[in-house]
Amino acid sequence: MTRFRLTVEYDGRPFMGWQRQGHGPSVQQAIEEAVFGITGEQATLHAAGRTDAGVHALAMTAHVDVAKPITAFRLADGLNAKLRPHPVAILKAEEAADDFHARFSCIGRRYIYRIVNRRAPLALEAGRAWRVPVPLDAEAMQEAAQCLVGRHDFTTFRSAQCQSQSPVKTLDRLDVRREGEAILFEVAARSFLHHQVRSMVGCLELVGRGKWSAADLKAALEARDRNALGFNAPPDGLYFAAAIYPDEAPRPNSR
Amino acid sequence: MTRFRLTVEYDGRPFMGWQRQGHGPSVQQAIEEAVFGITGEQATLHAAGRTDAGVHALAMTAHVDVAKPITAFRLADGLNAKLRPHPVAILKAEEAADDFHARFSCIGRRYIYRIVNRRAPLALEAGRAWRVPVPLDAEAMQEAAQCLVGRHDFTTFRSAQCQSQSPVKTLDRLDVRREGEAILFEVAARSFLHHQVRSMVGCLELVGRGKWSAADLKAALEARDRNALGFNAPPDGLYFAAAIYPDEAPRPNSR
Repeated sequence: MTRFRLTVEYDGRPFMGWQRQGHGPSVQQAIEEAVFGITGEQATLHAAGRTDAGVHALAMTAHVDVAKPITAFRLADGLNAKLRPHPVAILKAEEAADDFHARFSCIGRRYIYRIVNRRAPLALEAGRAWRVPVPLDAEAMQEAAQCLVGRHDFTTFRSAQCQSQSPVKTLDRLDVRREGEAILFEVAARSFLHHQVRSMVGCLELVGRGKWSAADLKAALEARDRNALGFNAPPDGLYFAAAIYPDEAPRPNSR
Repeated sequence: MTRFRLTVEYDGRPFMGWQRQGHGPSVQQAIEEAVFGITGEQATLHAAGRTDAGVHALAMTAHVDVAKPITAFRLADGLNAKLRPHPVAILKAEEAADDFHARFSCIGRRYIYRIVNRRAPLALEAGRAWRVPVPLDAEAMQEAAQCLVGRHDFTTFRSAQCQSQSPVKTLDRLDVRREGEAILFEVAARSFLHHQVRSMVGCLELVGRGKWSAADLKAALEARDRNALGFNAPPDGLYFAAAIYPDEAPRPNSR
């Protein structure tokens, strides 16, 4: 049995999410079926993050155990061939230690979120960014966002379906900046609550349009109450960007 | 009758190209039908460039004459509403002078071409970039490309269907640079022959993979013979980026 670590890029639009589900296609199922197509084995994939319907990945980390003798290189090529026409690509396959676990060994997760701040609809990025037609003040958003960084009870920013044992998380980074007509969020933590990134982005959008002040955002956090939430940003703009493991120093500007 | 200048973004994948054709959907037809939906007028759209099937636009310029009284702002919003679900967006509509002509007034056209230089398939950019799996030397491509800049007979880089009166064109710019795993081409000229950008990119890819030298590229140009062409790059990576008009100074880093 060899444990393989996979780095996976996917477009979340056609999927009900990462996790295998009864009621629709998932990224996990697509890859597990590709593994079966190559090895004849019913393997289970484990991932660093279980993204929701419509959420994308630039570089999700997952692992799978394979009995059939195969090199990492041939596994990646074979999976990519079997995965067509799903918008899922194995960027890299590597042999991993037997105790490597994509979910439980992971000590850091990074997301990016992308708003396109313009009136016109998105022809090239439909489903791949959140279009906000009213002008947003990215500097105000960046300033307000800093009150969320650190160790907090994030109950306000947690979905009703969240399975995390505790609402207390440490947010390592939440940076907002404008790049032309786009507004880019870079978010990092050891782990996140369900919907936490989209909830934070949704509230920061209210700050950007001047509907909330930085104090309103702080009050929402301190309320520890889901009813204090502004709203969730749509999945379209959210990308799982990186999973960090103990043997790796996080690269400062990686996305 | 008011002449409106439109700036249009589109994803070329579902279209046979810009130009209205008998055998399939076109961007022109989609917008003309949207104009009809708003004004009841059978207007004809004229564009700065007639892109091929699968070629995209970040900012195509077109014009159309409308008899019904309507502001540019309402025209843009109305067209965008009617254009759904086509991946075509009117970024801007402006009233233009009666003698403004999107095609004949245009004094400069800019394209970008995007290669993703990696082995794995494209999950997020499928149909939106050309994936080249073998490593490319972008510096060698940039160096070789400079022999194409200037006034030349571009017969080698011209399709059999090209309707241009002369194969002699002046290429103002052809810059190639690596950005991470992407290789970006920026191309500018007053006008181009049919397939010229894709032909030049196709030959530069041969240079990048070491199959052609800079001297081979120069010899291909000087052959003035379509049989000397390496091959055409696919439409996937090509974007019409800007049309320049006499009243505008070209912005140095615009795309």
